[in-house]
Amino acid sequence: MEGIKGGLCSVKGVRAYGIKEGNNGLALIEGKGKAVGVFTSNKIKAAPVRFTKRQLEKGEGRISAIIANSGCANSFTGEKGMRNAEKMAELVSSSLGVDKEEVAVASTGPIGKQLDMGLIERQLGEVAKGLTSDEEGSMTAAKAIMTTDTFHKERAVSIGAGDEERVVIGGIAKGSGMIFPHLGLATATMLCFIYTDVSLDEEALKRCLEDAVDNSFNMIVVDGDMSTNDMVLLVSTGGSGEISEGDFKEGLNFVCKELAKLIARDGEGATKFIEVRVKGTASVGDAREIAKAIVRSPLVKSAIFGERLDLACGRIIATIGSSTVSGDVDPSSISLSVKSEVQRRVLVAKKGEFVDLLGIARDIMKGKEIFIDVDMGMGEREATAWGCDLSYDYVRINAG
Amino acid sequence: MEGIKGGLCSVKGVRAYGIKEGNNGLALIEGKGKAVGVFTSNKIKAAPVRFTKRQLEKGEGRISAIIANSGCANSFTGEKGMRNAEKMAELVSSSLGVDKEEVAVASTGPIGKQLDMGLIERQLGEVAKGLTSDEEGSMTAAKAIMTTDTFHKERAVSIGAGDEERVVIGGIAKGSGMIFPHLGLATATMLCFIYTDVSLDEEALKRCLEDAVDNSFNMIVVDGDMSTNDMVLLVSTGGSGEISEGDFKEGLNFVCKELAKLIARDGEGATKFIEVRVKGTASVGDAREIAKAIVRSPLVKSAIFGERLDLACGRIIATIGSSTVSGDVDPSSISLSVKSEVQRRVLVAKKGEFVDLLGIARDIMKGKEIFIDVDMGMGEREATAWGCDLSYDYVRINAG
Repeated sequence: MEGIKGGLCSVKGVRAYGIKEGNNGLALIEGKGKAVGVFTSNKIKAAPVRFTKRQLEKGEGRISAIIANSGCANSFTGEKGMRNAEKMAELVSSSLGVDKEEVAVASTGPIGKQLDMGLIERQLGEVAKGLTSDEEGSMTAAKAIMTTDTFHKERAVSIGAGDEERVVIGGIAKGSGMIFPHLGLATATMLCFIYTDVSLDEEALKRCLEDAVDNSFNMIVVDGDMSTNDMVLLVSTGGSGEISEGDFKEGLNFVCKELAKLIARDGEGATKFIEVRVKGTASVGDAREIAKAIVRSPLVKSAIFGERLDLACGRIIATIGSSTVSGDVDPSSISLSVKSEVQRRVLVAKKGEFVDLLGIARDIMKGKEIFIDVDMGMGEREATAWGCDLSYDYVRINAG
Repeated sequence: MEGIKGGLCSVKGVRAYGIKEGNNGLALIEGKGKAVGVFTSNKIKAAPVRFTKRQLEKGEGRISAIIANSGCANSFTGEKGMRNAEKMAELVSSSLGVDKEEVAVASTGPIGKQLDMGLIERQLGEVAKGLTSDEEGSMTAAKAIMTTDTFHKERAVSIGAGDEERVVIGGIAKGSGMIFPHLGLATATMLCFIYTDVSLDEEALKRCLEDAVDNSFNMIVVDGDMSTNDMVLLVSTGGSGEISEGDFKEGLNFVCKELAKLIARDGEGATKFIEVRVKGTASVGDAREIAKAIVRSPLVKSAIFGERLDLACGRIIATIGSSTVSGDVDPSSISLSVKSEVQRRVLVAKKGEFVDLLGIARDIMKGKEIFIDVDMGMGEREATAWGCDLSYDYVRINAG
C-alpha cells in the first residue's frame, strides 16, 4: 500500500470540481458505481441525509454523481427542505444526463435556513463545466465543501503490485466543528466521499466501510456535538484487479483514519493535535469509550491548551472514571504515559499514583502533537482516539 | 415556606467556621444528627468519598461533624490518600471530642497530589476555635470550600407556621467547574452540606434527598466533566415540630434547586445564566435528557456567549436529535421559545420551522438570563436544567 496523489480523481473514471464563493460552496463528483453509505445517528436528520439514504435504496445502491453544498445545512427545514434536496438531484440529472435516482445529495452549514436554490443552480452550471479527472478536480471539490475548516482534506492510496492488480482508494472529507462520533455501526460524523475501483460486492463494501468508520471517524471528537448532516459515502466503480476483502479493508481503514486525523487536526480553534491510545481493557468497546471520553473532556482539552501536564493528568483520571465502561475501574492498576514531538515518552502515572508531573516531563506539553497512552491494566484490548485542544479560538469561532 | 438568613447555622445546634489561605481552605461543621448522603458515580472515587460513604455505614448513619478542605482533591492518591482522609477524621475527633466514626470528610481541588497534613492540622486548630452558630459560621465555611467559585453559596428556608411547628433547612455548596450530573439516584455533582431539624426517619430523609438531588444538582451542567469528589450530605438534628414528608421534600427541593442554580450561575467563566425547560415528552427521563444535552452542548453555549440566537437555535435542534431519548424524534412537532430579562418570550420555532430568528427576537440574547422553552409536542412530561454559556474565560481558567 502506498500513498498517491489525486484524492478522488486518482480513481479512473471519476471527475470532480467545486467552487467556493464566500461561505457558499458547491462540489460535484461524477463517477458511476455501487454505493454504500453511513449516516448520522442524530434523531433529527437533515433533508439531504434522508434523501440520500432513500436514493441508495431506490437506486439499488448505485450512484452516478454526488452534489454537496456548503453554507446551508438544509436541516430543520420542513417539507420545503426535502423538495429542495430533490431539486438538487434533478438539476444534476439534467446537467450531466444521469438518472436522478442515482444522484446523492449532501449539505453542510448552519441549521434552520432554507437553501438559496437560485444560487445552487447558478453554481452548478459553473461546476459542471469545470468537471475534470485531474488532481485539481478533487482539490477544488474538497475546498468547496469546507465550512470552518482551515485546510482541505483528501487522501488516496494504491494497493497491490503491478498495474494490473492495482486497487485505488481516494477520498475527500470536511469537518472542523460539531464533531462527535456516535456509538455503533452505520454512523458517521462529517462529510466524506470515497471512490475506489475495487471489485467487491455490496455486502463486502458495507462491511469494510463500517469497520473503517468505527476505527476512524467514530474515534474523533472535536466538541462532542453531533451534526444532523453527517455522511460517508463509498462508491466502487469496479474494474480493478483482484484483491482480498482483508487487503481492501486495510487500505480503506488507512484512508479513513488519515482523513479522520485531518479533521481532528483541523478542529475549530485547535492549537494542538491529541492522540489517546487506551490499552489493557477487557473489550475494544471499553477502550474506545475511555479514549473518546478523554479527547471529549473540555477540562482535559483546556489543560492541554494551557500546556499544564499536572492539570491534564488529574482530569484524565476523573474522565476515565466517568466514562461508561462495563464493570469497576481500579485506580491502582492505571498507568499513564505522555510524549510529544519535543520530548520522548515519559511515564507520568504508575499503577495508581503520579510519578512525574512537574519534573522531567514538564516540557512535553510544549509540543504541537500530544500522544497520551493509558494502560488500564485490566485486559488485552485497545483503541485509539483523536482530537484537539480547546482554545480561545474555539469559543471565538462558535460565538459568531 | 420562606427564605431565611444564616445558611447552615439557621438550624439550631449547628456551629460552623472556615478559613481560606490562598488556594487552601478548611471548613468545619459541628452538628449531631442522622445523616444520609449521595456521592459521585464516577468509577474512580476520591479517598474522602470512599471514606465518608464507609463512615455513614459504620456510624449507623449518624454524623457529629463534617470537615472539608479545598486546594487538594485527595484523589488518585493511593493508600496514603485513604490514611490521610482517616487522619482528618481523627484530628476532628480529638479537637471536638466527638466519635471519629461520626466525622464526614470531603475534599475539592486538583486531582493527583497528596494532602499537606501539616497545613490541615494547623488550619483545623484555627477553625475549631472559630466555630460559631452565628451567620458568620455558615458564610466562612461556604467561603472556605470555594475553588474557582467567584461567590459563596448558601440558602436556608423555614417551613410551617408557628415557632413550634417550624422546620428549618439550611445548606452551603461549592461548585464552578467539573460540573456534570450523572444519571440515576445516589449521584451528585459537587460539595453540598445541608442541615435540618426535621424529625423524619432515615429512609424518608433518603427518599427526600434523592428526589431533591435528581431535580437540582443532577440537572446542572457547566462543562460535562464529572468529578471524583462530589458529595451531598443531609444531616437531620431532629427536634423540630411535626411536618409531612411531602412538605419537607418540597422545602428540600427548593433549597437544593437554589444552591444548584447558584452553581450554574457561577460556572467557570460564565457571562450568562441559562435555564432550559423541556416539556411535551413521553417521560420525565426524556425531558431531563434533552434539557441537559442542550445546556451541555459547547456549540449552543458558545452561540449564547456570542449572543447569536440564530446559531444557538439551530444547534439546539441538532442537540435535541442527538440526545439519548427513547424512540424517534419528529422535528415537525418541535416548537421553541426564548425570553430573557431584556425581552419578553418570543416563539422562534413553530412545529418544525423557525419563525423568527433575526426579527423581533434579535435583542433577546443581550440578556444575562436566558430562558429557553422547548415543546417536543410528544407527551405531557417536563423537566428543567440549568447551565451557563461557554466563554473565553472558561478556557483561560482551565488552561492554567
